[in-house]
Amino acid sequence: MTDAAAVLRESRHRLEDSLRQIVKLLDKHRLVETMVDRDRASPRHDLIESLVHRQHLVELQLKLRSLHPADIAYVLEALPPDDRLLIWRQIQDDRGGEVLLEVSDAVRDALIEVLERPALVRVLGQLDADDLAELAEAVPEEVLAEVSQTLTARDRDWLQTTMAYPEDRVGHLMSQDVLTVRESQRVEQVLWLLRGRDDLPPNTDSLFVVDARHQFRGVLPLRALLLNDPQVRVADLMLTDPVVFGVRDAAADAARAFERYDLVSAPAINERGKLVGRLTVDAVMDYIREESEEDALNMAGLRGDEDLFAPIWHSARNRWLWLSVNLCTAFIASRVIGLFEETISQLVALATLMPIVAGIGGNSGNQTTALVVRGLALGEIRPENTWHLACKELGVGLLNGLVWGATVGLFAYALYWNGPLGLVMAAAMLLNLLLAALVGVAIPLTLHRLGRDPALGSSVLLTFITDGMGFFIFLGLATVFLP
Amino acid sequence: MTDAAAVLRESRHRLEDSLRQIVKLLDKHRLVETMVDRDRASPRHDLIESLVHRQHLVELQLKLRSLHPADIAYVLEALPPDDRLLIWRQIQDDRGGEVLLEVSDAVRDALIEVLERPALVRVLGQLDADDLAELAEAVPEEVLAEVSQTLTARDRDWLQTTMAYPEDRVGHLMSQDVLTVRESQRVEQVLWLLRGRDDLPPNTDSLFVVDARHQFRGVLPLRALLLNDPQVRVADLMLTDPVVFGVRDAAADAARAFERYDLVSAPAINERGKLVGRLTVDAVMDYIREESEEDALNMAGLRGDEDLFAPIWHSARNRWLWLSVNLCTAFIASRVIGLFEETISQLVALATLMPIVAGIGGNSGNQTTALVVRGLALGEIRPENTWHLACKELGVGLLNGLVWGATVGLFAYALYWNGPLGLVMAAAMLLNLLLAALVGVAIPLTLHRLGRDPALGSSVLLTFITDGMGFFIFLGLATVFLP
Repeated sequence: MTDAAAVLRESRHRLEDSLRQIVKLLDKHRLVETMVDRDRASPRHDLIESLVHRQHLVELQLKLRSLHPADIAYVLEALPPDDRLLIWRQIQDDRGGEVLLEVSDAVRDALIEVLERPALVRVLGQLDADDLAELAEAVPEEVLAEVSQTLTARDRDWLQTTMAYPEDRVGHLMSQDVLTVRESQRVEQVLWLLRGRDDLPPNTDSLFVVDARHQFRGVLPLRALLLNDPQVRVADLMLTDPVVFGVRDAAADAARAFERYDLVSAPAINERGKLVGRLTVDAVMDYIREESEEDALNMAGLRGDEDLFAPIWHSARNRWLWLSVNLCTAFIASRVIGLFEETISQLVALATLMPIVAGIGGNSGNQTTALVVRGLALGEIRPENTWHLACKELGVGLLNGLVWGATVGLFAYALYWNGPLGLVMAAAMLLNLLLAALVGVAIPLTLHRLGRDPALGSSVLLTFITDGMGFFIFLGLATVFLP
Repeated sequence: MTDAAAVLRESRHRLEDSLRQIVKLLDKHRLVETMVDRDRASPRHDLIESLVHRQHLVELQLKLRSLHPADIAYVLEALPPDDRLLIWRQIQDDRGGEVLLEVSDAVRDALIEVLERPALVRVLGQLDADDLAELAEAVPEEVLAEVSQTLTARDRDWLQTTMAYPEDRVGHLMSQDVLTVRESQRVEQVLWLLRGRDDLPPNTDSLFVVDARHQFRGVLPLRALLLNDPQVRVADLMLTDPVVFGVRDAAADAARAFERYDLVSAPAINERGKLVGRLTVDAVMDYIREESEEDALNMAGLRGDEDLFAPIWHSARNRWLWLSVNLCTAFIASRVIGLFEETISQLVALATLMPIVAGIGGNSGNQTTALVVRGLALGEIRPENTWHLACKELGVGLLNGLVWGATVGLFAYALYWNGPLGLVMAAAMLLNLLLAALVGVAIPLTLHRLGRDPALGSSVLLTFITDGMGFFIFLGLATVFLP
């Protein structure tokens, strides 16, 4: 009998405890290795090494065996590369496939990289067609072909079908394990069929009703089976207008529908109305989490997924794309300042003040962009209300421009006791904030209309414009109006 | 009989079509209003107005009645404030409560604001205790007290219990509708009990097993009821080590567990092991989405939730906190430059080049911060590996510093044919990138250790240091080493 309070403590701290224990075992393991290394001259060296090694590894394996694959994935992600590979070697033959499904993309790539081809084929051989489809992009094509030879013809077909859809489509996320019934069946018959199975696929909250041509007809919630008389027909219990997804529907739209209508599973059908698969809430949650993380990293100028403990060289390369874009924009902004070196040499205060104009403009524009990116993601921004939105943001820019323009104008005046300089500063601030509002709305909308991710790169582009134009406006006004 | 292909098209475009239709109806409504206004002198004015108004409003009401509350919420969020209130007035008495549950926090506040107290009490009266708890924070205390008078004693208790937990705890997210069974019961008895109900609570994939003292014993999956013989006992089917949450567990941890173990529902128990509620995947998904959106807005310097169509005054105020922080940091960075006005007046090129050093440093540091923030959110960063992480980021900073330092150094040299200037530029770049790496790791870790959200404000703080120190390093080196 389990003690409930113990269960609670257990599940709260289980994961952290496991990680701590594993780190301790790894430390012992390393310590032994160092000692044995020092002792290499001794004849007993090999014996000691194999004995203590074996002892710690057995302990480690026992610990790992008690963990859920998702927990092993967590442990792997939290460990530096060397330790990670040590753990990976302990589990790869046993549960490597399941673990690969759970780790982040970057760590997955690193784990696959260290496997020789035969080992990789063995690991992938542990998986079914749905899971293979999920890993397909991370695996070399020949390996995938070799593994798929071991699948049944049906599974091989399925693998090819789902892989044919891009990653952001329902067809790529759906799974194959669909339970179907017919309209003419009675509850009793359905229950009898279910009892013939060992288990139901995970996240099964309903069965799907199809006709003889496998055309989708409706959804039969499991609860209907539990709550109704065994003699009732499926046709009388099924829902005929459930939420249904087409295989080519955007995964992001499907994810929003799952949130909106609180779905657990939903049918995926092809262009001709045939039921082909099933979308489940766990796949949708993973999709949402991955997307939101990728967005957060993208906005900071990192490509897709970066492993926290990747080798330095990997990490550096991952950041170069955006850093070099940023460098180009910085060079251009710098040349804008270069145009006004003459003016600056006459009044060095301008050099001191110009970063303020550019910085506040960039910040304010980024606020607008973040709002617009979210509005686009939620589908709240539409052709009819774009104009209203732009006017509102310009209004905010105007208000902020007056308030903050006056503030920085006074600051400049107080510092240099120079009235015209204060006025130029205030005017430049106002103009740059208006520009930031306009560009902050325009950039994500344009990227969106071009079919790009509006979050990706919008911050770099925006900062480029608010910096470059901020310098230009401020120094230009100074050149014209200051004596 | 439904045609499946039609169902597909329907569900794909239903929402957008609905929104378009509603916008059209609103346009007609406005057009009529304008015409009637112009015609105000005519005696037929009142008659026309009431007739056409009524016609369009009836059409609008019909359309709205056909929509799911979540869809009405979507429509409300996509409309400017005036139209939004027009729609809200049509539905508030009927389904206002459900819609309030679905809209974003900012829009919810706006909708509640326009309701007089009696109307608000009516709207909230449509909800049960779980839903009321969700809205509790948005509603004035007296109103909530008045509404809770209409609840049963049990519901009132529940409302007080859940509201007592902070928003980021499991106790706040859990719901009351728990189905419990006893270990001694047989499948047959459980099925008989279920058939006595009209329906099951949403997202019910399992029943919870408790003892006579309502201590939690285990979980009985619904599938076990379907797959097993009616004579088997619950004790033999129930899972005794399911994932269980304590009411004081962090909601973020619970969300990760739902993702990790693909849960649909899970029991919530109190400190003494009593089953008190149920956490479901829909509440968890909403939580994840809200958190990730809030993080994205926070990182851009916006407080919590901002309504896309909020009045200008509201929006401007929402952005002032971070803009004013940013202004202070910009002033300080500007004063750092001020220290070196003497140096700049001798070589104006310094003013042209200094934003490059500061900008690239900020960008690179933000990349590091974004990674560390994600690592903290996923629990991958731990005391044992922090040192490893810092070293790795310093390594990346060193590598990037050498590469980009050389690049900008050459750029400066090529522009001004000034060798020492190029060297100073390269050295400043290298030092600032090393600093950015160090600070990029340290800031989110420090915020985290202080119990703050590591995303909130880390970007502003980081940019402050990379700007200020970037200027200081570059201009300082120039003062010392340039003739």
